[in-house]
Amino acid sequence: MVNETQQTSSASSSSRSDGGSSSGSESSKDNSRCSTPVLDADRHERLREKMRRRQEAGDRWFSLEFFPPRTANAAVNLISRFDRMGAGGPLFIDVTWHPAGDPGSDKETSSMIIANTAVNYCGLETILHMTCCNQTKDDITGHLQKAKRLGLKNIMALRGDPSGEEWEEEVDGFNHAVDLVKHIRNEFDDYFDICVAGYPKGHPEAESYEADLRHLKEKVFAGADFIITQLFFRPETFFKFMKDCQAIGITCPIIPGIFPIQGYHSLRQLVKLSKLEVPQEIKDVIEPIKDNDAAIRNYGVELAVSMCRELLDSGMVHGLHFYTLNREVATTEVLKRLGLWREDPRRPLPWAVSAHPKRRVEDVRPIFWASRPKSYIYRTQEWDDFPNGRWGNSSSPAFGELKDYYLFYLKSKSPREELLKMWGEELTSEESVFEVFTCYITGEPNRNGYKVTCMPWNDDPLATETNLLKDELERVNRRGILTINSQPNINGKPSTDPIVGWGPSGGYVFQKAYLEFFTSSEIVTALLKVLKKYEQRVNYHIVNVKGQNITNAPDLQPNAVTWGIFPGREIIQPTVVDPVSFLSWKDEAFALWIEQWAKLYEEESPSRMIIQYIHDNYYLVNLVDNDFPLENCLWQVVEDTFELLNSATQQ
Amino acid sequence: MVNETQQTSSASSSSRSDGGSSSGSESSKDNSRCSTPVLDADRHERLREKMRRRQEAGDRWFSLEFFPPRTANAAVNLISRFDRMGAGGPLFIDVTWHPAGDPGSDKETSSMIIANTAVNYCGLETILHMTCCNQTKDDITGHLQKAKRLGLKNIMALRGDPSGEEWEEEVDGFNHAVDLVKHIRNEFDDYFDICVAGYPKGHPEAESYEADLRHLKEKVFAGADFIITQLFFRPETFFKFMKDCQAIGITCPIIPGIFPIQGYHSLRQLVKLSKLEVPQEIKDVIEPIKDNDAAIRNYGVELAVSMCRELLDSGMVHGLHFYTLNREVATTEVLKRLGLWREDPRRPLPWAVSAHPKRRVEDVRPIFWASRPKSYIYRTQEWDDFPNGRWGNSSSPAFGELKDYYLFYLKSKSPREELLKMWGEELTSEESVFEVFTCYITGEPNRNGYKVTCMPWNDDPLATETNLLKDELERVNRRGILTINSQPNINGKPSTDPIVGWGPSGGYVFQKAYLEFFTSSEIVTALLKVLKKYEQRVNYHIVNVKGQNITNAPDLQPNAVTWGIFPGREIIQPTVVDPVSFLSWKDEAFALWIEQWAKLYEEESPSRMIIQYIHDNYYLVNLVDNDFPLENCLWQVVEDTFELLNSATQQ
Repeated sequence: MVNETQQTSSASSSSRSDGGSSSGSESSKDNSRCSTPVLDADRHERLREKMRRRQEAGDRWFSLEFFPPRTANAAVNLISRFDRMGAGGPLFIDVTWHPAGDPGSDKETSSMIIANTAVNYCGLETILHMTCCNQTKDDITGHLQKAKRLGLKNIMALRGDPSGEEWEEEVDGFNHAVDLVKHIRNEFDDYFDICVAGYPKGHPEAESYEADLRHLKEKVFAGADFIITQLFFRPETFFKFMKDCQAIGITCPIIPGIFPIQGYHSLRQLVKLSKLEVPQEIKDVIEPIKDNDAAIRNYGVELAVSMCRELLDSGMVHGLHFYTLNREVATTEVLKRLGLWREDPRRPLPWAVSAHPKRRVEDVRPIFWASRPKSYIYRTQEWDDFPNGRWGNSSSPAFGELKDYYLFYLKSKSPREELLKMWGEELTSEESVFEVFTCYITGEPNRNGYKVTCMPWNDDPLATETNLLKDELERVNRRGILTINSQPNINGKPSTDPIVGWGPSGGYVFQKAYLEFFTSSEIVTALLKVLKKYEQRVNYHIVNVKGQNITNAPDLQPNAVTWGIFPGREIIQPTVVDPVSFLSWKDEAFALWIEQWAKLYEEESPSRMIIQYIHDNYYLVNLVDNDFPLENCLWQVVEDTFELLNSATQQ
Repeated sequence: MVNETQQTSSASSSSRSDGGSSSGSESSKDNSRCSTPVLDADRHERLREKMRRRQEAGDRWFSLEFFPPRTANAAVNLISRFDRMGAGGPLFIDVTWHPAGDPGSDKETSSMIIANTAVNYCGLETILHMTCCNQTKDDITGHLQKAKRLGLKNIMALRGDPSGEEWEEEVDGFNHAVDLVKHIRNEFDDYFDICVAGYPKGHPEAESYEADLRHLKEKVFAGADFIITQLFFRPETFFKFMKDCQAIGITCPIIPGIFPIQGYHSLRQLVKLSKLEVPQEIKDVIEPIKDNDAAIRNYGVELAVSMCRELLDSGMVHGLHFYTLNREVATTEVLKRLGLWREDPRRPLPWAVSAHPKRRVEDVRPIFWASRPKSYIYRTQEWDDFPNGRWGNSSSPAFGELKDYYLFYLKSKSPREELLKMWGEELTSEESVFEVFTCYITGEPNRNGYKVTCMPWNDDPLATETNLLKDELERVNRRGILTINSQPNINGKPSTDPIVGWGPSGGYVFQKAYLEFFTSSEIVTALLKVLKKYEQRVNYHIVNVKGQNITNAPDLQPNAVTWGIFPGREIIQPTVVDPVSFLSWKDEAFALWIEQWAKLYEEESPSRMIIQYIHDNYYLVNLVDNDFPLENCLWQVVEDTFELLNSATQQ
């Protein structure tokens, strides 16, 4: 009676079904907590388990390699690239280790910090490279401890290039990658997944190809979980290498490293560094077109696509690793043509999840940081845990201060000159501020012909979902209700809905209408009168920069405003309006007027004084319409407010 | 701008609104946990706070006094009475202390156990009386510790009647109630709310009325929180007493004790015990009708109603305490005529909440015990806490064993003879069992003319909500799908809906359709084939007595099947289908066949063997239709199963 699709288990056992994965013990632990339904197995598996699961399922995947940039500005751009390329669904990215660039430091361009940003702020599974030669054991342990603390879970263990010509092996030192692998396993047990490098043509410094294979086997037997290969130019090179590895007993995954040729110079430099020889047939094509970047890139894409196809078709390869050289176009093009680039419009939660292991149970956040998730992560990074997937004890003073508005991963992508064009070289009145907000909503150019594509509270153009409310938002912003966050009400749309859906398929998602805005005290006075008519239906929080706080929320309890009902699961409520954390958000939201906007202008300038006036005198308001099955009443609340103001003016 | 309906608070403070009650610190703690929205202030307040809040709100209330019964059967009946009279909304009940009845023991008729049952199993705020004379300090401390352990929070501190004629005060002993009050405050700090007795006519043994008032003042100043008076016959008696109390500085609440005269003999006995004098005008009425119980009761009700009205109209009285003598009719009648009896059809949660302090945060239970909540409470009573309002670690072996099916609060209200009439003196086949189930559903008499008003899994007639499914249930039970639990799907009905509503007003409640039944392995085989067509939509758990378990639930996660969305709150999901606790329930559900049904018959009798056969061979099945917005598909699943069986038979 029990067929293969059913899971059977004996009641006398621990009653876990036997269909569970090897992460069973952990998932059963979460089970008992019962308030954090496991939405996404990905969040709970180690990289090597994900790899195994994808392989077993016959799924093909890719990964992306980046190097740390030289300047802070380049770092900001790289982070945007992480966000964009992350959307294609890499299994992981890796960040190389640059001994010359102070790689373990807290500099915004260090390998450590770039990898940290990828994991924590971009939610990407990340491998941090680490080299060991010319370093003390303590240095290395320090780097590994720091990596662990930051939430990094995977290390690519490398020897690195010895500095100086006269490098000699040190006794008891870290002379080879295998020493680093052993050290990691000794000191950190099974905490890290370890990757090592394989050289399909043999390491240039190895005595022989065979000797190099033996070194690789040592690394694997010392505890490495998988191998990524150096780049190569012909599929046969990889197939031979793979067979030779298997022949000597290496059974872990071997991932071919793919280098799409993107330009003449970068190819030459890479070849020089890696001491590889470019096959004659490639040289023959490239030399004649060496000054035509586009032609070389097209050729490189063609070449990579055809090699990747051959690798995948062999059945020996399940994943491809791309050396991106921090560039986007060529790799993305190859991936799209291979059908590996998968922009999944479905989100496990309505906000982007972080890949830090301690945040993997996080399943609810205050709505306020919806457009500034990196700031939320930064300000809650010191929290020890996320009990029950919640945002911790929001009534304790645990929200980190946001002192530094210039943290590179929080910095606006636009330079000052561009911001001035968008937000006005010169402001003449509060109304000119209303205009900026209105242009941001409509997407129309401002009076100087520039589109407003970001605001201090939102570094990106309007979200698709917010677009649903565009007309209403335009109308109210024109009249001084300066909106910074909103969502429509949703009464049970399928979880696969392309705009508002999230979570597993077969479920239903819901929202209460939400509206958050700055506005003058005059409007607030009228609004409060109007809100009396909506007392049962609308919850409000109204606060000014000094912290004067007006609310009708019962007992300062959070109000769930986004939730989902799924087959076979507990209810998930990923977004709440939390009155306590609203006061932390309020400080940030008001400060952004000054830090991001006012400071564009000279001190004492009229423009700066206008922003300062708004900062000092406006209120930050949030409204929730609790009657989600009915038509959103918040627009009516605002209309009523304007009407009340008009009638008062006329008297 | 801030008006009186708004709560203001400074952001620089701890950001609690200043509208909070004195339980602020506790509720703020719960706040931060955020997964247990405070649904019902009642569950978090101490009795004295509830009293104060009701008084401040101008709400009038009542309370009910009971004494422990003499026999176990009487205890079963008293517990049913608690459930029925609890529905009228008493602020509390109290249970008297009978020194002769081993009051602190574990006997089912002891004061301690009756009070325990009222708190834990009936969810009633309860005061346990305790007397101190002729007892050692250790005895008393032991009783108080036990009371605390059981979740009792209120003590009525009394001296008690000295035993023997020659009682003398003991040095350092407990000679007066005030000694007990002091002892409680010394040993248990502020844990208990303490009530003391007031004597409007003076204690019969006191030197004088004035001396007795001074004793009362001593008791209050020693730490008593409020006073309940001895019964009296004229409102003036109470008014004078109250004024005299106030005159000497007693400011705590004084609750008049009301004794509705219910019969000639009970009046005489009470008067004898309390050494009170019945006023001549009452004697004059009663004597001539002393053999007419109905007439005396009518008179008693009239008299009580008119006295209560006078007390309430005075504005000095906010609550009335009724000496029920464990009877229901007279007191209920008085309360209804006073308009104090308030059967609130609105439930804070879809199941009856327990009044044990450690369960006050409990807000989710497995659906399986829906008709056996007392068993669920019994089997989880040892749990240390209810983290996040959850049912604790359901995957730990923490479910208590239900060894004793004869615990008086779990016992069927019907005696064996009645059960035999309902369930059959003699069973001839499995079909005769189907008939019993069908009669229970339809409410029609069985073939011997008896209505089936209870089943081993449900001691009460069908719930109103289940009635919504009556036709479908009848059809499937006739054919051997023996249902024991079910609920219809609900897609957002108002929380005030009289049948399916619960929780605060202004919210919406939801349910997934649920069906739980016993059925033969033949039907299960067909059912499993049918369920493949519903794979995405229906979650199932199918288990037999040996624990063979077939399920398609992902990772053994709980499935929320009842939830509510309320203004300004997090989402509440009070009922789940939890795969792990289902296996504990399964043991209980199968055992009930034997313990409650098979054992009605002689060993080896055909009837007993039929039940035993079902117990040994049937499966317990539960089905959830996850698509709550659509029409419930579970009936179609069952129809399809029968069709499949029919077509197989015809082949």
